[in-house]
Amino acid sequence: MIITSRHPLSTSGQGDAHDITRQVGAAVAQSGLTAGIVTVFVTGSTAAVTTIEFEPGAVADFNRLFETLAPRNASYQHHLRWGDDNGSSHVRAALLGPSLTIPFVDRQLTLGTWQQVMVLEFDTRGRRREIVIQIVGE
Amino acid sequence: MIITSRHPLSTSGQGDAHDITRQVGAAVAQSGLTAGIVTVFVTGSTAAVTTIEFEPGAVADFNRLFETLAPRNASYQHHLRWGDDNGSSHVRAALLGPSLTIPFVDRQLTLGTWQQVMVLEFDTRGRRREIVIQIVGE
Amino acid sequence: MIITSRHPLSTSGQGDAHDITRQVGAAVAQSGLTAGIVTVFVTGSTAAVTTIEFEPGAVADFNRLFETLAPRNASYQHHLRWGDDNGSSHVRAALLGPSLTIPFVDRQLTLGTWQQVMVLEFDTRGRRREIVIQIVGE
Repeated sequence: MIITSRHPLSTSGQGDAHDITRQVGAAVAQSGLTAGIVTVFVTGSTAAVTTIEFEPGAVADFNRLFETLAPRNASYQHHLRWGDDNGSSHVRAALLGPSLTIPFVDRQLTLGTWQQVMVLEFDTRGRRREIVIQIVGE
Repeated sequence: MIITSRHPLSTSGQGDAHDITRQVGAAVAQSGLTAGIVTVFVTGSTAAVTTIEFEPGAVADFNRLFETLAPRNASYQHHLRWGDDNGSSHVRAALLGPSLTIPFVDRQLTLGTWQQVMVLEFDTRGRRREIVIQIVGE
Repeated sequence: MIITSRHPLSTSGQGDAHDITRQVGAAVAQSGLTAGIVTVFVTGSTAAVTTIEFEPGAVADFNRLFETLAPRNASYQHHLRWGDDNGSSHVRAALLGPSLTIPFVDRQLTLGTWQQVMVLEFDTRGRRREIVIQIVGE
């Protein structure tokens, strides 16, 4: 059985991190399904999803890594095309990826206690995002 | 229901990027399935898959990031084993990953307008790749 | 049909790499299913999973990349919160990701010959891990 839901998410710009573990867990609980996988997918090319211990220090460390990898104020060929300023956003998001698949068993996600599902905004301005949560289970 | 297809892809070497969004969308459309997930998987350890705004500037920026992370001409322990010259390829591919899972609903991928599915060759020579597109849906 | 198994894995600390391809393949073979996807998921926020040519050189090169990206002995805001010393572990694991989805066809994983499934420990001490292998197939 396949159950899909879409969740709006407003972000404030580059580095804005959202813990959506509760929404993912609720989608599984409300599905009535016992076991399967849940795919969390961020529509758009300047945001990404992963798991992390969602506390401000680890999130800040993670953002600092991306600033080192792809500095916001470096020059990007993407800027030349559209006059955009978000070349760093595209590079960061493509590296981290828009998709995460998590198994669930006995109606519970197999996440660890200190492992949360995080959507990370990389765009240079706030965006209205849509998060797709899709369950394939039985 | 599960529907698998395999798609050959010839590449020209490190940094060669292919937009396969059309093939993935066609596989979903032809499956006759309404909703589910499609997994795009690159067989082999020196290529990877992600999503990106597929325009030459962003792709060049992304390749530049990988050249910074794992320079092609640096020395790699992998070279010592086989006399290969593609240590940078293995490191880059393992970081980005061979697999991408995308939900579809109403026969449509949940990608954004500027979000394409890209296979990125990291090997130092051209390769004949096989891309697996597998749909789990109903 | 959905079949889940959990596999304990003891690790020796940061950089310890485990080839679990055999366990993943065995789970698929024992499922009796012909085609589908297998999701490999590492519970916890300081380990990750990907594919690589699993030979000591490539694994060492890969670990060296992470030491460059997020040096073990750098300062991390995460350390300030808990007095932990594993800020590098969290950053590395969130970047690489805890989940890998692999299609299988005719009871065989679609991996390449030189492409193995690797669990990589990033924590600064040995851990007892649980690897979830979940098959969705028919």
